[in-house]
Amino acid sequence: MEAKGNGPNEERLRPELDGPTNPMVTPLLTDLYQFTMAYAYWKAGKHLERAVFDLFFRKNPFGGEYTVFAGLEECIRFIANFKFTEEEISFLRSSLPSTCEDGFYDYLRGIDCSDVEVYAASEGSVVFPKVVQLLETPFVNLINYASLVATNAARHRFVAGKSKALLEFGLRRAQGPDGGISASKYCYIGGFDATSNVAAGRLFGIPMRGTHSHAFVSSFMSPDEIVEKSLRSCDGSSTCEDFVSLVQTWLSKIQWTHSLRGIFGETNQSELAAFTSYALAFPTNFLALVDTYDVMRSGVPNYCAVALALSDLGYKAVGIRLDSGDLAYLSCEARKFFFEIEKEFRVPGFGKMAITASNDLNEETLDALNKQGHEVDAFGIGTYLVTCYAQAALGCVFKLVEINNQPRMKLSEDVSKVSIPCKKRCYRLYGREGYPLVDIMTGENEPPPKVSIIAVAYLQVAERILCRHPFNESKRAYVVPQRVEELLKCYWPGCSGVIPNLECIT
Amino acid sequence: MEAKGNGPNEERLRPELDGPTNPMVTPLLTDLYQFTMAYAYWKAGKHLERAVFDLFFRKNPFGGEYTVFAGLEECIRFIANFKFTEEEISFLRSSLPSTCEDGFYDYLRGIDCSDVEVYAASEGSVVFPKVVQLLETPFVNLINYASLVATNAARHRFVAGKSKALLEFGLRRAQGPDGGISASKYCYIGGFDATSNVAAGRLFGIPMRGTHSHAFVSSFMSPDEIVEKSLRSCDGSSTCEDFVSLVQTWLSKIQWTHSLRGIFGETNQSELAAFTSYALAFPTNFLALVDTYDVMRSGVPNYCAVALALSDLGYKAVGIRLDSGDLAYLSCEARKFFFEIEKEFRVPGFGKMAITASNDLNEETLDALNKQGHEVDAFGIGTYLVTCYAQAALGCVFKLVEINNQPRMKLSEDVSKVSIPCKKRCYRLYGREGYPLVDIMTGENEPPPKVSIIAVAYLQVAERILCRHPFNESKRAYVVPQRVEELLKCYWPGCSGVIPNLECIT
Repeated sequence: MEAKGNGPNEERLRPELDGPTNPMVTPLLTDLYQFTMAYAYWKAGKHLERAVFDLFFRKNPFGGEYTVFAGLEECIRFIANFKFTEEEISFLRSSLPSTCEDGFYDYLRGIDCSDVEVYAASEGSVVFPKVVQLLETPFVNLINYASLVATNAARHRFVAGKSKALLEFGLRRAQGPDGGISASKYCYIGGFDATSNVAAGRLFGIPMRGTHSHAFVSSFMSPDEIVEKSLRSCDGSSTCEDFVSLVQTWLSKIQWTHSLRGIFGETNQSELAAFTSYALAFPTNFLALVDTYDVMRSGVPNYCAVALALSDLGYKAVGIRLDSGDLAYLSCEARKFFFEIEKEFRVPGFGKMAITASNDLNEETLDALNKQGHEVDAFGIGTYLVTCYAQAALGCVFKLVEINNQPRMKLSEDVSKVSIPCKKRCYRLYGREGYPLVDIMTGENEPPPKVSIIAVAYLQVAERILCRHPFNESKRAYVVPQRVEELLKCYWPGCSGVIPNLECIT
Repeated sequence: MEAKGNGPNEERLRPELDGPTNPMVTPLLTDLYQFTMAYAYWKAGKHLERAVFDLFFRKNPFGGEYTVFAGLEECIRFIANFKFTEEEISFLRSSLPSTCEDGFYDYLRGIDCSDVEVYAASEGSVVFPKVVQLLETPFVNLINYASLVATNAARHRFVAGKSKALLEFGLRRAQGPDGGISASKYCYIGGFDATSNVAAGRLFGIPMRGTHSHAFVSSFMSPDEIVEKSLRSCDGSSTCEDFVSLVQTWLSKIQWTHSLRGIFGETNQSELAAFTSYALAFPTNFLALVDTYDVMRSGVPNYCAVALALSDLGYKAVGIRLDSGDLAYLSCEARKFFFEIEKEFRVPGFGKMAITASNDLNEETLDALNKQGHEVDAFGIGTYLVTCYAQAALGCVFKLVEINNQPRMKLSEDVSKVSIPCKKRCYRLYGREGYPLVDIMTGENEPPPKVSIIAVAYLQVAERILCRHPFNESKRAYVVPQRVEELLKCYWPGCSGVIPNLECIT
């Protein structure tokens, strides 16, 4: 059931309920018809009735078998801060027909979400179609993309395997600034290790990663232009006055190494200058992008020369990034080169230098790399991850299911679009091996499914529970649960007196 | 060349440069490696050099032939407000290695964008691969999605035709809150008429549209529950004490109309109650969603009864919305019904009642509706429009092309990924009929293409200009321009003394 190799990450985030993460998330972030309906309800005196809404989706995204539920904290934050400002009320007054009565605006002025109750599955948990339940509306916006991108991240983690580092590099291709920030947050919840996005790092405390671009490499001409050439050793005991020459010396040594002969001749001097400058700036964190000119004939040898020079001064270089070409082949060739250096110059650990790969990666390319065999340690994934290219939207809907304790349902000629009436409880039934078997919904006041053991002869046998598919009469199964978990917990108690589950929101 | 039926809408927006639209758009909204590189440049003393970057894309989106350029105002707003706060500098200090020198943070404290110049095509204009030029970096995030969704909107406008109203209904399915707000803004620039998104309406002054949902309809039981039944006539001269009965009377009349006999029997009373309540709340703006139960057997007759009752009091109902089923067929049937009512009860204009259609519409479904023949006046488009489902990202890139007046280029084994060096000028050449023929790039200091007329015998002939494809030698053409337009205007002059083009940014 643990869909993501690295498990849910939400406990590593640091939310605070005081104010929305995104200041644009105000009560106006909604469709106009929510206000026209609110007015009509108010006019008809229906605003005091008690209504229950279900928020759910009908189909798992990406043709897959599960969805990672996310966006809950943003929803709770939204209702915790739900209050109209005078400026917002003026805007609404100017937007609605002039026939709307003043009393409505007084009503809006007075409302907050203290009468609302929210029950939901926990953020970061795996959920299935039709069973997520929530109250209140712009939630759909906050849940849809969050759950979609968290699910996408979990799927990438599943393909990449637990041992690889997954880095989210999507900011520049995301759907707007907040698309980028949300992507970083929910990819982390879905099992990624770090992001390149500094704003997300600051807002959520997500680890950040990043080195340099091709432009950095091509902005240099040759090592001659490096003015400040000195570098103190890692332990501070000595200073190398000409690090640039030290790098050149190492490059010559590599060039004349018998086992590496023929792989490369002259390397690109602009690239060498860029790597040397970068190492002078970040001696403790030297990671270089090696594909600006030619990976094996320039990038990797240049990198090794700088890394060996750093090693002389006690620093350990981090690794390389590949951003083009045949990533499987190049990573294997680079790995061989690193091991050759380790052997030749007796630098322990040099062979295990980290190799990061990027360049339009997605689930399919990760799978193809696995099949080809590769030596990549970390994947930087952008466009396909954050825009959810394979399926750009999750079809979350929000349906009225009960009003004043009376059931309500939406009918449709398409049976899959019929809503299931009444307030519900949801349970996950676990089998003998500890894996979940099935999720079931019951009416609010029905007894919960029980794990009851009955003695049959000398055996202790757990009782069977009959589970039916909501729409397909032929789909039914007896399940013998060893454990029952209630899925929907109270995250916002309103005035109900129910004790909220704050574990993931404070 | 006017790709969108309704032309660019940007002049209808009301931007102010004072502060970003989205408060998350701060100097931290960038990749970590921008800061590591900035530090390395600063360490190497290269931060004082003058660099030129091109921002461009390699391929038009959606398999199409053009892109609508958008996001420029957000970029200008970003640089106009570019300044690090002390809190941001502290965060950076804690995020970068402790070896980074203090002087760098002092340098960050001091910088703004007064040394930057930005040249660009105008927002909302049609552009082609490789020719958009800009400076500075998180621009890519701001331009990518903006241009993508504006292009998507323009394509929907092209298919729908000029005479139809296009309404953006995407907020709930957009990629996060700002995904929704940006979508509303750039769909409007791309040729949409209105949005359902209230926050976007307030921020940008975009017209808003919206009525009610299926939940509103199913929240009512029967007309008996309507307590406040009186409605003043439109001119204020009289009051109908029981509007509910007036609606019931009209419903009976329609039911006994010979020409409508057999279409429907009993209509749904919950729906009738909802429509009546909505009309009492919005007598001047009555528009009803008619597909909660059955469009032709309940929704349309109920709608007509309420609309006719409103008509008795001098109000003109607006129309219906269809959100499921065969939209082409149902719109034609509803239209026939309306004309029958107009004829039978002599209500002028009733036949032309507006019909709005929604439900997972996209370019293909609009095209299919056109082919089938329909009576829809307005389309509400959501998911496919705002998430750019057909292609969720535009591949904008940002490449260094010149430094200290020296050309720079990125090489690649893939020739289409080679960048074109040097600062450029771009021109659009127009032919005899006033249509653009081709866009060309020249070096910054090359003479602009001229419209020169030479007399040949008794004919006046314009001079030919040889245009070459940047990468494909076999693609070349002589063009005889009648008019030349310079595409890249200065939108941010920095200290260059160039007079900025403020037409779309103030």
